[in-house]
Amino acid sequence: MTESMLEMDCTNLTPEPVLKTSGHVDRFTDLMVKDPETGECFRADKLLEDAIDNLLEDNTVTLSTEERDHHLRIQRQADAFSPQELDKLLKEDYKVKAPSGQEFSPSFPFNLMFKTTIGPEGTSVGFLRPETAQGLFVNFRRLLDYNAQRMPFAAAQIGLGFRNEISPRSGLLRVREFTMAEIEHFVNPDDKSHPNFASISDKELVLFGRDDQLGSGKTKTVSVGDAVKSGLVNNETLGYFMARTQLFMEKIGMDASRLRFRQHLTTEMAHYACDCWDLEIKSSYGWVECVGHADRACYDLKVHSEATNTPMVATQKLDKPKEITIAKLKFDRKLLGKEFKADQRVVSGALEALAQNWDDFEKVATDLETNGTTVVDGFTITKDMVTWKKANKKVHEIKFTPSVIEPSFGIGRILYSLLEHCFYTRDDEEKRNVMKFNPRVAPYKCAVLPISSSDELNAVVNEIAADLMDYDLSTKVDTSGATIGRRYARSDEIGVPFAVTCDFDTLKDGSVTLRERDSMEQVRLPKDDITAIIGAIVHGKMTWEGVQAKYPKYGGDAVASKTVVETSSRGSFSRPAPSN
Amino acid sequence: MTESMLEMDCTNLTPEPVLKTSGHVDRFTDLMVKDPETGECFRADKLLEDAIDNLLEDNTVTLSTEERDHHLRIQRQADAFSPQELDKLLKEDYKVKAPSGQEFSPSFPFNLMFKTTIGPEGTSVGFLRPETAQGLFVNFRRLLDYNAQRMPFAAAQIGLGFRNEISPRSGLLRVREFTMAEIEHFVNPDDKSHPNFASISDKELVLFGRDDQLGSGKTKTVSVGDAVKSGLVNNETLGYFMARTQLFMEKIGMDASRLRFRQHLTTEMAHYACDCWDLEIKSSYGWVECVGHADRACYDLKVHSEATNTPMVATQKLDKPKEITIAKLKFDRKLLGKEFKADQRVVSGALEALAQNWDDFEKVATDLETNGTTVVDGFTITKDMVTWKKANKKVHEIKFTPSVIEPSFGIGRILYSLLEHCFYTRDDEEKRNVMKFNPRVAPYKCAVLPISSSDELNAVVNEIAADLMDYDLSTKVDTSGATIGRRYARSDEIGVPFAVTCDFDTLKDGSVTLRERDSMEQVRLPKDDITAIIGAIVHGKMTWEGVQAKYPKYGGDAVASKTVVETSSRGSFSRPAPSN
Repeated sequence: MTESMLEMDCTNLTPEPVLKTSGHVDRFTDLMVKDPETGECFRADKLLEDAIDNLLEDNTVTLSTEERDHHLRIQRQADAFSPQELDKLLKEDYKVKAPSGQEFSPSFPFNLMFKTTIGPEGTSVGFLRPETAQGLFVNFRRLLDYNAQRMPFAAAQIGLGFRNEISPRSGLLRVREFTMAEIEHFVNPDDKSHPNFASISDKELVLFGRDDQLGSGKTKTVSVGDAVKSGLVNNETLGYFMARTQLFMEKIGMDASRLRFRQHLTTEMAHYACDCWDLEIKSSYGWVECVGHADRACYDLKVHSEATNTPMVATQKLDKPKEITIAKLKFDRKLLGKEFKADQRVVSGALEALAQNWDDFEKVATDLETNGTTVVDGFTITKDMVTWKKANKKVHEIKFTPSVIEPSFGIGRILYSLLEHCFYTRDDEEKRNVMKFNPRVAPYKCAVLPISSSDELNAVVNEIAADLMDYDLSTKVDTSGATIGRRYARSDEIGVPFAVTCDFDTLKDGSVTLRERDSMEQVRLPKDDITAIIGAIVHGKMTWEGVQAKYPKYGGDAVASKTVVETSSRGSFSRPAPSN
Repeated sequence: MTESMLEMDCTNLTPEPVLKTSGHVDRFTDLMVKDPETGECFRADKLLEDAIDNLLEDNTVTLSTEERDHHLRIQRQADAFSPQELDKLLKEDYKVKAPSGQEFSPSFPFNLMFKTTIGPEGTSVGFLRPETAQGLFVNFRRLLDYNAQRMPFAAAQIGLGFRNEISPRSGLLRVREFTMAEIEHFVNPDDKSHPNFASISDKELVLFGRDDQLGSGKTKTVSVGDAVKSGLVNNETLGYFMARTQLFMEKIGMDASRLRFRQHLTTEMAHYACDCWDLEIKSSYGWVECVGHADRACYDLKVHSEATNTPMVATQKLDKPKEITIAKLKFDRKLLGKEFKADQRVVSGALEALAQNWDDFEKVATDLETNGTTVVDGFTITKDMVTWKKANKKVHEIKFTPSVIEPSFGIGRILYSLLEHCFYTRDDEEKRNVMKFNPRVAPYKCAVLPISSSDELNAVVNEIAADLMDYDLSTKVDTSGATIGRRYARSDEIGVPFAVTCDFDTLKDGSVTLRERDSMEQVRLPKDDITAIIGAIVHGKMTWEGVQAKYPKYGGDAVASKTVVETSSRGSFSRPAPSN
């Protein structure tokens, strides 16, 4: 399903005011501790996690199930503790020492943003963006215009994020520079339904809610429709994106049994957020957060709107007009002019804005009635300056600050997990390694090989490869002298899903063999069909079974895919099995 | 033609040592002047260029052709002057004053790299990369391995570059963060021929050589084959990439009459470079450098190799063994051991390395013979430590530090130029704007419209659009209530090359009309053919003329594409012309 999201490419260098407003300058921190002797720095929550891992490993026998669960619960909350709590846990409960043997320093916040200065004068501070989202928020009005003021809508961005990680590690999983893809879906806060929810509501997800994390430690498998109905997942739009993420992961070939959604604990979640669920993927590094799904409420647009004094609101036309209560104002213009001079219009404007809705104006009215005076936008207003009347008004549209629901993908983490999930070893004598990349995501879609290297065969090989590449189907030509079996194995090892082989019959009748990587089965087909067939499979319009139904099977499995291992004085070698 | 280049994605954050070695820390500067009163900074060469523009504009009548040419020559060299030369030109010759009315400060170099610190300790300096190239150079050994040690080969990278421009301006043309694409083609310095040169040698290029820049001010149109033969372009590989760049520009729809290659002046070129040619594209901002083509010789690999003490060499197998003269050494091991202790193997190793080629060893031999002593790698060697004999040796391969030939594309500049080159206004009453994007690069390949909005027609529209998008052919659906003529105009305005219209006949027989943007002509064809046809055109396998030959023309031009302008009291409106 296509979403017709807007796409945007914002800058990586971000001026300080944007990130001051978003809260990153003050709060985008990790807790750090220092070895007082060496000055080496460590991330405090990771020290706690490691300490618990070690404790559990060293005491597999002696710990009771309850004790284990207690430690695991603490471990799961490691990044949600306050500095004081962490210090107590590290020092008193788990007795963690610095590598020098001394006590660590108390934990303190370390801002993860890379700072630089912009411009020749060296006076403007800038940061490398820690996430792509802010660029979309500050461009909200432009995006809304571009979408012809229609709500709800989403904008997406793929780009780099930068975080000055205290201790980068685990390959692509914790790095200082990474590719991310974020979707900001803007929605009316009073209506977070999603028009396409029905299309995914039956999809089952493995959910690890916050109660289960603090309690049973067990996940639940629930349809997203039921999860939203029961309130476990806050709303339809959030649930919709969770289901779409799950479907995406399955589509690119991730192992569904190693996926789960973990809800943020209340302590872990930003104060303004409604609900957050991380898609975690299991790899040899454990469960790793790879895609965040957060309902950030109206926070982002509100703060940028206030900081820049720019309304960031959307308008919703009402099906039928709605009656609201307002205040009709009458000013003593002379008095206002005398009191506020050049500012008189600012003052009357501010009061008029409040008067658009009685709920907003009520405090002013009460103040003036009871105290005779009130303060609006820093101006002191007295009772004699303005009188009002309550009135009803029909409105045909309402204005609101949209809520933001944000799926945020860590591309490097997804890529790494996919590599692990796609790796297998053939269950035969040779134990050859294969990457079973789905054709949609395989870096090479097809290999093209001549059965033996000759000018005539190479010409056909190049012609087939060029046609595939003209259709953006990346292709690897292998005209090396290695046996066909060896070349198939090489191609399997880097996850090429299909291999086309040209042989002497190709020169006679234009037919070639097409081999599928995982089944190692082959069909015979005209070379001119190759690009259309591979294109159709890559674009999800055809399956290998469909290809097998359409074209004759080629040879026994033995013809070109099986190999035998020969052992000689120089070691073990694989060779193609002799064909019959 | 596909090149099978390697692709790599290196980090943007770059540790200081890499950029110190490459010379960027010391020399990646622009000359800057300051207004002493306000502290405002300006790029000195741009001030000179602007001053000359103003002078020429103010004196169009009074200046002789010779005087004009003199000023233009100075302007073309603006970024090649030394600080002293620039100061003299600005102050004495062109009398440029700061905005405050005072004299500018003397010009001084300003480093254009954004600096930051990496890691929690704040002690490691890093920069945002000013170009993508360095990442490929420091990974040269890995790339060569990946290419199975075969030479020549190329590696390519698309990514961001960052330059702290003193005065960013001109839209996408001078910005502080930009997308670039660089190719590093590694080649034997003694053989810069290119295997595919013959395929492009007849291609004519507009060349603005350095002699013509300083002399006639006129370009020459020459085939790249002749340019290389005459020595105007240094070598085949450099010429090959220049021709490929020209072909690329034509393929994406750039106006060939607004392209030229300008050679770097000797003063402008880095001391190590052999030859540099910038592809310049003309836009309303004048001739703008958009793609650099530089033969950087062995500089990059040499400096990184020396700084890291890591050989960065390639090996070339010789067709037949070659005889070379070497020195056969005999050491007095006892003396070496006594003199150099733990370093004795380092000393003998250094001498053995030189001895592999008599040309390298000759200086040592002469020194020892005439002075009795010499210094190698900081060690003082005396005559009694080593004796030697000249000898001949057959070698089967040679080792060399590859030269780098680098085409470097500024994507934002190319994009901006393409926007200008693709813009035109229809030559009819309404003067509507059109972007004539080539289908290969048009952001939307196809628009799909119902003749009027109904559930039945919208369903067909969505089905056609979904099928196109499944094949990565980006599609814009327009089901708005605007007239067909208005919707075609909207689609033309954003450069969509094709529009498919579904009408009531579509519901009966599955046929639709396909309209081409620039000719505004239409054909009628089965809806199921659309994806294949659009795909074939986008991938360069079919032309609009081919489509017209295959399918019947639809209606007169009048049917749906022509509009009439009606003028009423509310202003001018365009409406579809009444169909016959």
